[in-house]
Amino acid sequence: MTTSTQPISITRFTAKSSSTQMDLLSVEEPLEIALRYGMGLREMSLSVTMRTPGHDEELAIGFLLGEGIIRQYNDSIGVIQESPNRVVVILHEDVSFDPAQFERHVYTTSSCGICGKASINAVRVEHSAPSPSQYWKVSPNLLYSLPGLLRTQQADFETTGGLHASALFTQQADLVLIREDVGRHNALDKLIGATLQQDLPPLHDKILLLSGRASFELIQKASLAGITFVAAVGAPSSLAVQLAVEMNIVLVGFLRNERFNVYSGIERLVKA
Amino acid sequence: MTTSTQPISITRFTAKSSSTQMDLLSVEEPLEIALRYGMGLREMSLSVTMRTPGHDEELAIGFLLGEGIIRQYNDSIGVIQESPNRVVVILHEDVSFDPAQFERHVYTTSSCGICGKASINAVRVEHSAPSPSQYWKVSPNLLYSLPGLLRTQQADFETTGGLHASALFTQQADLVLIREDVGRHNALDKLIGATLQQDLPPLHDKILLLSGRASFELIQKASLAGITFVAAVGAPSSLAVQLAVEMNIVLVGFLRNERFNVYSGIERLVKA
Repeated sequence: MTTSTQPISITRFTAKSSSTQMDLLSVEEPLEIALRYGMGLREMSLSVTMRTPGHDEELAIGFLLGEGIIRQYNDSIGVIQESPNRVVVILHEDVSFDPAQFERHVYTTSSCGICGKASINAVRVEHSAPSPSQYWKVSPNLLYSLPGLLRTQQADFETTGGLHASALFTQQADLVLIREDVGRHNALDKLIGATLQQDLPPLHDKILLLSGRASFELIQKASLAGITFVAAVGAPSSLAVQLAVEMNIVLVGFLRNERFNVYSGIERLVKA
Repeated sequence: MTTSTQPISITRFTAKSSSTQMDLLSVEEPLEIALRYGMGLREMSLSVTMRTPGHDEELAIGFLLGEGIIRQYNDSIGVIQESPNRVVVILHEDVSFDPAQFERHVYTTSSCGICGKASINAVRVEHSAPSPSQYWKVSPNLLYSLPGLLRTQQADFETTGGLHASALFTQQADLVLIREDVGRHNALDKLIGATLQQDLPPLHDKILLLSGRASFELIQKASLAGITFVAAVGAPSSLAVQLAVEMNIVLVGFLRNERFNVYSGIERLVKA
């Protein structure tokens, strides 16, 4: 048992019987992410997210990257876990931050009104699409192997059935890193934050595997982290596909049981 | 095809072949929810959520109930769909609203610090637990039948595989209402908003079925809407269980394949 799971007594019903048993729950607790910035180190609370405790500093760093507040780990000078549910990131004094401009989803309030196209344009401003020289191909057999590899590593999911996972693999299907959380956005923020904290090499040559569905915000976070290949066990949304196409990101969905669909970047798949 | 799905050309890989086919995606687009309030009808943007278009007015009403801004439909005097991705709720002038107090997750910033207990206490302040006189019992066989009934009604999920659903059933397993969305919170906001708009009877004698996992925020929304019985196809989180226990809400999880677990309110299940 870790702090990410919690024992509970439940009653289990089946068609034949009911019985009281011990079970494990995925822990969900609020985390406040705050920022200290500027010469006077003013402080601002950025967000409260419901997350599974653990890897909170990574979560904060990944969140800040996804919000465009930092672009690399050195844009911060430290992360402090002030209390079990509060983390403060201290911004480097050379990095500008305008609290007035930081509002939720500022990126969508362009002059043309709020729409998916405006959301995509905002991501494009933040991060240019990778150049064709970064292209590499993946075989279907390699992709088929990834969900099984993820499952063997997803310790807490096995015991609770309640966690999302994000994982990075090499092109040889070697697992680089995995993070789990009750929230799919948190799992990806933790993964990306960990790569920044650990100063891992650029991510453009890695495969990102998502245990669930692929939403716009997950592709946005992947894009800002420089990821160019995303495979999801679940379905992608329309806006996730549009963003992947615009940012030259390969997007594979429904990757399970030796099947998958390619929604973007088919030229980077080795044909079956 | 509806506006909630969008056709796309994909390449489908299986172990034996790959082929180009048409497929349907779940549509995801941003929706801005704004509020007009006070004698001068000032306006404030409350939230931007990534949702599946459709039932946007219900989504806005349900969101406002979940945030504690309204307690009944008559607290608003109208909802305007200003544009495809913007909805404005006009608050009744007798209903007080303090924009300074409306901040994201204000409820968690109690003096004791941010924690799950503080989150639960904030919900308790907003809404008292139902009295024991409202208790009624459900048989396992009735619960077993619900996921199948949901699936037959979940038209868009069948075609896209990418939508969450929230549904209300009577104690006789009759479907009252169902709403779908790429976001699970949105699906529940739409469902609750619809019951307010349609002036449906109180919800304390209905069963809420969730197509996925049960998080704290979903139980919070259900609680504020007066729901006392929640069954989820997926896993509940630790904080979801704690809140259900404190608010006297029955919480059933992993409801599938003629099995389920009871996390809260076992006295309201007829023993197998």
